[in-house]
Amino acid sequence: IKLIKSQGNERPKDPKLWPYFQDGLRRIDYVLTYHVQKPQSTRKLSAKSCLCFKFRREQSSPPAHEDPELAAQEQRLDYHEDDQRLRREEFEENLREMGLEMEREEGNKIPGVGFLKIHAPWEVLCREAEFMKLKMPTFKVFVLVNMFVQKVTATLQPKVGENRVENEKYLSYPFSREKQHLFDLSDRNSFFDSKTRSSIVSTNPFRKAFCLPSQGQFKTKCHLSPDLITKGPDVVLILSLQILCEEWASYSIFYKYQPIGLIRKYFGEKVGLYFAWLGVYTQMLIPAAIVGVIVFLYGCVTVEDNIPSMEVCDERNNITMCPICDRVCSYWKLVTACGTARASHLFDNAATVFFAIFMALWGQQLCSTFMFTQICALILHFCFNSPHTHPRSNAGLFKKLIILAKALNLPFLFGSSAVTGFEMRNYTLTKLLLTCRDRMPAYMTIIVMMVFLICVTLAIVFGVVLYRVSIMTALHMSSTPSFRTNIRATVKTTAAIINLIIIIIMDEVYGAIARWLTIMEVPKTDKSFEERLIFKTFILKFANAFTPIVYLAFFRGRIIGRPGKYIYVMGSYRMEECAHAGCLMELCIQLCITMLGKQLIQNNLFEIGVPKLKKMLRQRKIDKKHQEELDKTLHRHEKDHFLGPFVGLNPEYMEMIIQFGMVTLFVASFPLAPLFALLNNIIEIRLDAKKFVTELRRPIAVRAKDIGIWYTLLRGLSKVAVIVNAFVISFTSDFIPRLVYQYMYSPDGTLHGFVNHTLSYFNVSHFQPGTEPTESMHLGYKVEVCRYKDYRDPPWSDTPYEFSRQFWAILAARLAFVIVFQNVVMLMSDFVDWLIPDIPKDISIQIHNERNLIVELFMKQEQGKKYRNTIGDPSPQPLRSRPSSQA
Amino acid sequence: IKLIKSQGNERPKDPKLWPYFQDGLRRIDYVLTYHVQKPQSTRKLSAKSCLCFKFRREQSSPPAHEDPELAAQEQRLDYHEDDQRLRREEFEENLREMGLEMEREEGNKIPGVGFLKIHAPWEVLCREAEFMKLKMPTFKVFVLVNMFVQKVTATLQPKVGENRVENEKYLSYPFSREKQHLFDLSDRNSFFDSKTRSSIVSTNPFRKAFCLPSQGQFKTKCHLSPDLITKGPDVVLILSLQILCEEWASYSIFYKYQPIGLIRKYFGEKVGLYFAWLGVYTQMLIPAAIVGVIVFLYGCVTVEDNIPSMEVCDERNNITMCPICDRVCSYWKLVTACGTARASHLFDNAATVFFAIFMALWGQQLCSTFMFTQICALILHFCFNSPHTHPRSNAGLFKKLIILAKALNLPFLFGSSAVTGFEMRNYTLTKLLLTCRDRMPAYMTIIVMMVFLICVTLAIVFGVVLYRVSIMTALHMSSTPSFRTNIRATVKTTAAIINLIIIIIMDEVYGAIARWLTIMEVPKTDKSFEERLIFKTFILKFANAFTPIVYLAFFRGRIIGRPGKYIYVMGSYRMEECAHAGCLMELCIQLCITMLGKQLIQNNLFEIGVPKLKKMLRQRKIDKKHQEELDKTLHRHEKDHFLGPFVGLNPEYMEMIIQFGMVTLFVASFPLAPLFALLNNIIEIRLDAKKFVTELRRPIAVRAKDIGIWYTLLRGLSKVAVIVNAFVISFTSDFIPRLVYQYMYSPDGTLHGFVNHTLSYFNVSHFQPGTEPTESMHLGYKVEVCRYKDYRDPPWSDTPYEFSRQFWAILAARLAFVIVFQNVVMLMSDFVDWLIPDIPKDISIQIHNERNLIVELFMKQEQGKKYRNTIGDPSPQPLRSRPSSQA
Repeated sequence: IKLIKSQGNERPKDPKLWPYFQDGLRRIDYVLTYHVQKPQSTRKLSAKSCLCFKFRREQSSPPAHEDPELAAQEQRLDYHEDDQRLRREEFEENLREMGLEMEREEGNKIPGVGFLKIHAPWEVLCREAEFMKLKMPTFKVFVLVNMFVQKVTATLQPKVGENRVENEKYLSYPFSREKQHLFDLSDRNSFFDSKTRSSIVSTNPFRKAFCLPSQGQFKTKCHLSPDLITKGPDVVLILSLQILCEEWASYSIFYKYQPIGLIRKYFGEKVGLYFAWLGVYTQMLIPAAIVGVIVFLYGCVTVEDNIPSMEVCDERNNITMCPICDRVCSYWKLVTACGTARASHLFDNAATVFFAIFMALWGQQLCSTFMFTQICALILHFCFNSPHTHPRSNAGLFKKLIILAKALNLPFLFGSSAVTGFEMRNYTLTKLLLTCRDRMPAYMTIIVMMVFLICVTLAIVFGVVLYRVSIMTALHMSSTPSFRTNIRATVKTTAAIINLIIIIIMDEVYGAIARWLTIMEVPKTDKSFEERLIFKTFILKFANAFTPIVYLAFFRGRIIGRPGKYIYVMGSYRMEECAHAGCLMELCIQLCITMLGKQLIQNNLFEIGVPKLKKMLRQRKIDKKHQEELDKTLHRHEKDHFLGPFVGLNPEYMEMIIQFGMVTLFVASFPLAPLFALLNNIIEIRLDAKKFVTELRRPIAVRAKDIGIWYTLLRGLSKVAVIVNAFVISFTSDFIPRLVYQYMYSPDGTLHGFVNHTLSYFNVSHFQPGTEPTESMHLGYKVEVCRYKDYRDPPWSDTPYEFSRQFWAILAARLAFVIVFQNVVMLMSDFVDWLIPDIPKDISIQIHNERNLIVELFMKQEQGKKYRNTIGDPSPQPLRSRPSSQA
Repeated sequence: IKLIKSQGNERPKDPKLWPYFQDGLRRIDYVLTYHVQKPQSTRKLSAKSCLCFKFRREQSSPPAHEDPELAAQEQRLDYHEDDQRLRREEFEENLREMGLEMEREEGNKIPGVGFLKIHAPWEVLCREAEFMKLKMPTFKVFVLVNMFVQKVTATLQPKVGENRVENEKYLSYPFSREKQHLFDLSDRNSFFDSKTRSSIVSTNPFRKAFCLPSQGQFKTKCHLSPDLITKGPDVVLILSLQILCEEWASYSIFYKYQPIGLIRKYFGEKVGLYFAWLGVYTQMLIPAAIVGVIVFLYGCVTVEDNIPSMEVCDERNNITMCPICDRVCSYWKLVTACGTARASHLFDNAATVFFAIFMALWGQQLCSTFMFTQICALILHFCFNSPHTHPRSNAGLFKKLIILAKALNLPFLFGSSAVTGFEMRNYTLTKLLLTCRDRMPAYMTIIVMMVFLICVTLAIVFGVVLYRVSIMTALHMSSTPSFRTNIRATVKTTAAIINLIIIIIMDEVYGAIARWLTIMEVPKTDKSFEERLIFKTFILKFANAFTPIVYLAFFRGRIIGRPGKYIYVMGSYRMEECAHAGCLMELCIQLCITMLGKQLIQNNLFEIGVPKLKKMLRQRKIDKKHQEELDKTLHRHEKDHFLGPFVGLNPEYMEMIIQFGMVTLFVASFPLAPLFALLNNIIEIRLDAKKFVTELRRPIAVRAKDIGIWYTLLRGLSKVAVIVNAFVISFTSDFIPRLVYQYMYSPDGTLHGFVNHTLSYFNVSHFQPGTEPTESMHLGYKVEVCRYKDYRDPPWSDTPYEFSRQFWAILAARLAFVIVFQNVVMLMSDFVDWLIPDIPKDISIQIHNERNLIVELFMKQEQGKKYRNTIGDPSPQPLRSRPSSQA
């Protein structure tokens, strides 16, 4: 038997690095670590906690594992070492009862840390695999339909070595001990791969060992301190890691597809799904980026032919504008706004509207059809080779049904005990559910806190506005002329940067607060803990990132009043106006800075820099002398101890979702957003890959059927994007006024005269006393009537300075546009949904073939069994048709 | 053995009526009928067709079965009797090969019809049940959570006899021959009930007998002529039928719940689901009807306090209106419109807006959460006792995935052969798929026809408008004064009735055309045939029913021009105006007549009258002398031959969906609609029940997981309803103008002066020559300025008769309202979705308990097996923790 095994897996030469027990026979499937008493143990290493609690969190929410806050709480609990040892032994006994085999290795190499190596024997693996209904490959091989697309993209495929996989596939079927003849069991050691083995070990036996859910009661209390859970890698895995390094975590192959199958094999479904999703999203960004660039170029090309900006820049149109600030500013010529008007055209032209519709559809489509189903169908079915995550009882209603069922099935309810002292009480399931009244204070606090935090965000935005207004006024007062010309640009840019810095700081703060609030809420299950945490974090971070942008898009320049009756804040500061050609350009600058800044600083600095720093800190703890010595003698799992813990995928998802928001929500004002996002993501994929491969401990393979709440958030965002884009186009851009002018008011059906049309008249004698410009002769002539951008009746009408008929007509047109836009996009989205089949044709043929093969397989079996079957009625031999002659 | 069996089922005394073979042992599970050569056979009975084709249609689309058009086509095919017999024998041989047993009985009692009785032996049942993964009850009984609601509604529950079912339930598990020990097989005869047996027989063995899908090729051609497929009822069934008659198909128990479990047991999932759906929908109508009645009563109560109608009725407001028709009509006093104004208030008040929001949410909710999930969870899980339709791989994406897979798995492709001659060619699967080019002509025809038919609908509506206009003008010309006063009411009512008649006639025509178009389209599978047919029928019928209403709501009175510049159609007819207080009341009348008329005439007349007539016709064919004699000697299945065929549920669903449209789409204008719908549905349920129990042959039990495309249509309608209601409120009703007046123009913040505000001025000297009223002194004084309902500038302004500033302001307000309404309802709908869990709590606990029980069951098994398990590694005894001292 020893011989057969060594044939199956080549072992590294140094026997210490074998992923086997000391007897060299039994493979290590799972390693638990715990704290061993040591007089000089630092606080950091002596985290003591209930394994129950720890384990429960890992089971479905890896992010919570190794969480600094909880770890801090854990430290407060100081159980006696003896007590711990007793509990550990009880736990081990339970594991042994489940059929697992163990080997212990106590802190002789790394001081203060003991390792408990676990091996699952064949029968345990079989039992649990049957119980989990794992789909395992059968004997049957079938050839994949050779897809045209696959051929074309052959060069883009990563070289994962196993060429066979691309054309052939093993038919898989839920494992059952009664149907063993279906499966290729010739090499029992490799039938279940290491990821499957460890997830088998970590799923059922553990749960049962801790708290057998029979009768809905918890059988044991358990206090073991596993500080680190990692697994012994085998040779195949080291090989996989090598391939992953070369074919995935490398910037030089950025143009290639990711080896999703391999990622899934090594890291489990949840991580695989994240990268699959990221890949599909990035891929989908390509068309968006291309169209965005074209739209931008169209703006560049047509800037010379643009009648409104030509009119603004035309020296002959001698239009005198009202001063932009009180007293110190004077009247100015419209022609000085020529540059801004031309620049605005780049982002505010007919193509923008088309682009907004395109992107709204794109977003909807990305969510509804392509992203979700393509991921599910294409990636799960093909690359994943689908043993686990076969499309089964997954989506829609039944998804929720199952989640609920699971939620209730999980005995590790997140009772209040979890926070106060990790004591699992002998509660029945239902008793652990807190009542509404118990939860009320927490809920109230949460609501109040959330409202307060959003108010804080608003206050910050208002603060930045005040900064802009006050600095602007101060700069206007300065007499240096060179200063004045650059005022706007300077203030805008500095304000945007301040905004960015605040956003980045508050992001971290809000993340921490959201976690705190969620812990206070005491959700029932991990799933709900994670979902609530994500939801809160999302709301806060989203508000944080988008409030300044929303302000710019919809409020700035709309609440300024009118000349002679300006609205003032903080005593004497006038609210800011937009530049002549609308706020779209400023919105664009803000978006650009926020997006680039966030991506550069947050992603790259935080994601690369901080983990590096942490790693350095961790390694400094070990004496440098020991370091080298340890390197040689340590087992793989012991080395992994020094890697960073896996903190979950939520930060990665959150980053992407905020980016998705930037790309879709205000895309009408910034057509280059998809391009920036695309560039960022191409780097991001490889960056994350590197991080996963080299910086982090290998996460426990978590089964996942979909990307969960993130999908809900994505859908929500893409819905909101439709309405936001509609409003941006109709209210922030000048598209509708131009259209209305062209078809309702223009004498010759062109835009000539549009600029004049948008400006109202103001009689300078109507200035409030003390606000008229001091240097009224600045332009060299006496101004009697100045112009301002608004649709109001002229001073000489019956109703001076009232909103004019044009104002209402344009408002109606704007609102009508919103309705039309929203409903057209919704309709088109449904239509496209209907047009594009959810499942690509070749995949559906594939699925059909697979089904047929299974049917055939069973039919053959039946043919064999048919006449051997002895149970049943003592049926007389089949009657041939009997003549029709009875009474 | 004979003894045991007779214990299981008591048999009727007359042995001829036993549902057993002649040997008295083997139960009849399925009966096929075919035509037997008989010299004097009438054409009607000699329908010759391929059983393949017939059967395939029954398998998933019962409506197509016994379809008159196809039957007509079938008659054209005149195969020789010999040929038929050969094919029949080949088919029987195939069935026998599948293990079924048969007994033949040739036309000795009913001339020209032969019966082939089929019995499925135990092993066949087992094999197929395992293959179909049927969930069968296990030994394990568990007690249902005693729900509070169930106790309260105890009196409303139908008495179905089996009281045990209400508190206990057998745990069910997919049947497998290897796990027979789990199931209670003590009485093999009743383990599979008759519905299950017949569906087992009809699903796999038949399919295989006809066309074994091995290698994707059809093995046999087959031409057998089963004219009628019915099943032998057993005693239990006769009992069920009795209970169904008493506890379901009776008007006197209209207030009770339906015995859904029993319906499902007897008729199968598809029919059960329809009645469940209808029941839930009717139940949901109750709150809507109550709120509707309250809203209506609110209108009645506040009619006296309504300022606008008071102003209209106030004699002191001496407002002279412009004439409503050219020349023959004269000026009139606004006070004469007092009655209409007051009546309008009943349907156009503040409560209407609330009601519209309520109903929009109701519709959304009905669809999204309540209806679908409650049906699925509550009914499927509880009443259905879920052997078949367990929530598994059902909704959303994976539903489509499975449909597709199924679609491709079905070998009975609806090739063109199906239409031309029912010849199944030896095609491979993929070859049978027509290419796009083959389909192009059909698609083009369909599109052209659909567009043409919708144009016809529009033309009809326009015709009715013309009728109204011309009759109105003609009546105005008549000099009888009593005529004139009743003109409007008469014309409105007659026009509405004409509309109704046209709608009912065209409904039938469109139904036929839709079927013809779908046959031409040659869809690939039954499922898609049915869906396409439903979709086309729906579009045509929907357009037919709603075009007049849409015209009334949104176009009437809006394209009339203005005094002095009216818009004319057909030469000299002015387009119709609305009454003073808006078109809402006329919309209401139209809706009321359409709804009541459709329900009364279409449902009751067509559904009761026509089947009765058909039955009479069928029975007249048999000689009356024979009749009584036959009654005594005939077997149950022979008697069933005279019942009407089951034509599917689509007409029933269609009727309900149009009703749902009426209830939700224009509910803002007709708050009593839900009440009428409720009353109709209460009758409808019992009517349909009676029809199913007494008038129709028992349909084949079809497994169904949901209501299919109808759900999509429902969702679509409820989405459209939101936007339509928003438009009805903002554009058809005077709600927005009132609001705008109150907050923008009213001097004292009330509605006083509103009527005056809505009327524009017209200088009578500006009438086009020849259109001024001939009797200009009709009112007794010379009119210089008359008023008309519109927002236009007065004749003395700079821009006479242009739309005024008010017009644009109100338009903007209306549009803003639409945006706000639509988005608020969408948001609220999502919020309510989020608030109400998809699955009621008790059911989720139920599901959880069930899962736990299954887990426990298997755990126990494992405990037994654990040490008996001999396969696997020769594992050494578990190692206890080894001291940590190795090299």
